[in-house]
Amino acid sequence: MSEIETLLAQVKLDADGLVPAIAQQHDTGEVLMMAWMNRDSLAETLATGQVCYWSRSRRSLWRKGESSGQAQRLVSLRPDCDGDTLLLLVEQTGVACHTGHRSCFYREWREGDLAEIAPPEVSEAELYGKA
Amino acid sequence: MSEIETLLAQVKLDADGLVPAIAQQHDTGEVLMMAWMNRDSLAETLATGQVCYWSRSRRSLWRKGESSGQAQRLVSLRPDCDGDTLLLLVEQTGVACHTGHRSCFYREWREGDLAEIAPPEVSEAELYGKA
Repeated sequence: MSEIETLLAQVKLDADGLVPAIAQQHDTGEVLMMAWMNRDSLAETLATGQVCYWSRSRRSLWRKGESSGQAQRLVSLRPDCDGDTLLLLVEQTGVACHTGHRSCFYREWREGDLAEIAPPEVSEAELYGKA
Repeated sequence: MSEIETLLAQVKLDADGLVPAIAQQHDTGEVLMMAWMNRDSLAETLATGQVCYWSRSRRSLWRKGESSGQAQRLVSLRPDCDGDTLLLLVEQTGVACHTGHRSCFYREWREGDLAEIAPPEVSEAELYGKA
């Protein structure tokens, strides 16, 4: 059995063939983002060591950092107890969020509203070469 | 507008009325588990400060720790950039996983197979009062 088959035997894809994947910076513990993987993106991630998701909106493989340069190198892959979620420990180049924030979770619920708790590190224009 | 309405205006529930929620221990950064919330579980969590999920298998509110005692006190709630995932920083009492492991992510993909990287801290029998 190939590596991806062995892994997929222990990972449950949902009705759409997807599994949620949480990306966490391996050394600091920051939770960076959550996205989705399918069989092909998982196979590519294992083969290359660079995280590849499945973009539900574009319906295509999403090689993280492909357009922004903000790639994720896979350090460790951990399925949860029932195999329906993945935790990816990664080495994040630059920022994870398309808004230029290090993490997509940059807002916190405080006293009945959302407060920004971290500033963006780069502008979206810089990230996507429109600066 | 009530607190829950204000929050729900910025959180996108999926076609089933659910949003994935990642629980992370607030001080150590451990990612403990991922589960789902709906409108009612989110409202209850905000109201009580104790994390309540929606159990997709039981189709009912899942007050974390209700049967095991392993509750989660909410420390911070952070929606992601597009509002379709929540990060919950929590104070976890005991273990998060029904297997008795501190985290549900206790297995790692190594050399083509899954390796257990942390032992259970309690037995399932102890957790659910069958000891």
